[in-house]
Amino acid sequence: LCLGLDPDPAALDPAAGSDDGDVRARAAEAVVAGCRALIAGAGASCVAVKLQLACFERLGAPGWEALEDVLDAARDARLLVIADGKRGDVPVSAAAYGQALFGSTPTPWGDVDGLGADAATLNPLLGGDALDPLIDAAAEAGAGVFCLVRTSNQGAADLFDAPSPDAPLYERIAAMVAERSARLAGRSGLSGVGAVVGATEPQHLARLRELMPEAIFLIPGVGAQGGQVGDLGPALGAHPASVLVTASRSIATATDPARTAEGLRDELWRLAGA
Amino acid sequence: LCLGLDPDPAALDPAAGSDDGDVRARAAEAVVAGCRALIAGAGASCVAVKLQLACFERLGAPGWEALEDVLDAARDARLLVIADGKRGDVPVSAAAYGQALFGSTPTPWGDVDGLGADAATLNPLLGGDALDPLIDAAAEAGAGVFCLVRTSNQGAADLFDAPSPDAPLYERIAAMVAERSARLAGRSGLSGVGAVVGATEPQHLARLRELMPEAIFLIPGVGAQGGQVGDLGPALGAHPASVLVTASRSIATATDPARTAEGLRDELWRLAGA
Repeated sequence: LCLGLDPDPAALDPAAGSDDGDVRARAAEAVVAGCRALIAGAGASCVAVKLQLACFERLGAPGWEALEDVLDAARDARLLVIADGKRGDVPVSAAAYGQALFGSTPTPWGDVDGLGADAATLNPLLGGDALDPLIDAAAEAGAGVFCLVRTSNQGAADLFDAPSPDAPLYERIAAMVAERSARLAGRSGLSGVGAVVGATEPQHLARLRELMPEAIFLIPGVGAQGGQVGDLGPALGAHPASVLVTASRSIATATDPARTAEGLRDELWRLAGA
Repeated sequence: LCLGLDPDPAALDPAAGSDDGDVRARAAEAVVAGCRALIAGAGASCVAVKLQLACFERLGAPGWEALEDVLDAARDARLLVIADGKRGDVPVSAAAYGQALFGSTPTPWGDVDGLGADAATLNPLLGGDALDPLIDAAAEAGAGVFCLVRTSNQGAADLFDAPSPDAPLYERIAAMVAERSARLAGRSGLSGVGAVVGATEPQHLARLRELMPEAIFLIPGVGAQGGQVGDLGPALGAHPASVLVTASRSIATATDPARTAEGLRDELWRLAGA
């Protein structure tokens, strides 16, 4: 199970943060406190957190500081960190994102470390040469990537499911992922070149697993978006760690986030036969 | 002409910035100085700057502050600002990017303003429902968007050019752009729902203009990537402002950036018959 952290500043406790006059800094501070509380509460049932970068970026520079602080908190809790920014750009810019997410940036005065994420979500639309610098950066850092293969939103049907021409576009993307599998191969038989595959259309899962036997599937869409853990069986590969289900709102808005996370984890363990 | 700012911290002047011990802050300060110098030198020949977000993010929170400072500098120089982050996410997260790029984020202590960009580049892979919150945010702010329709990198052939099934995928994306044209319609007959279309494969331009008659085309790939201004004629619509050519490395690394930008602008003016 992966704890999705998509902090919503509008939902913050009005009493949180320090009242020093700067709204952005106060909101960022309260966001960190809220994420820390969720990690403390629900983290024990999870192996990873997924940080939705958009939610931090909207608070500007203090939001980016909050992102770095939450990342530290997750590491202190021994959780893997997935930077969920769905980045993708032409090769020279993809390399810059690689420095930001996994590596470091040389300057005349020394290197500047990036986020040091354990994995990041990538958008493959720009093609293989745009994915490769990010996979290289992940390889060098011992990190992984999750390439969007078929997302969980309704509009995913517009392009991912487009006939292209013998099979939907997502199968073409799955082939791109599988081709790169060996570059982040782990000893378990799994690869760090993973795939984002939504839980909302479980009829695709068996075919996607067939196309990407080694990929770890990061699966959103359970809970608030209507996906069911019980439908995810076909997503499992040979290894129980081949599936990482991510839940954000269903845990964060629960009356008892710790118990909700525990319940989801138990469901996943049953599914994986662990 | 649009001045692309993709600051490379490795190429900074070792004497730049203040030596206060913090490498990130010094690099960010030097990045701002470098961007200000380029705006002062080449800005007079341009109508806009395009900020490559990856290049700022790799410096962490100080990088985001640098981004905000460069944005202010561009505004002071009366240049439009295009935030080039190629964002795209499921609707709830796309709305958060809309707050970060164009709008503001409510908090219990007041609203936090986002970047206030005049336009942003968007990745359409997640489909129409993922584009719409960003177009809504742009509409509310009087801003525009540039949707990736066919990028300038070699790997663009992998997915953009995939047969899907009667026409390449980029034609399907172009149709998504054209369908949304009316939502950001301007008085000139142009729409703020624009398209990123690379200069490196000019044989696509006439068809893309036919499919998106009202879209402003943001055209990268001239100069360092090998595209030629002279080949861009078919990209022009009825209005001369229908094409915005963006040049980054070819201006930034020129011996005389001001003169290079002026030369490019004159070439474009001749092309547009202005």
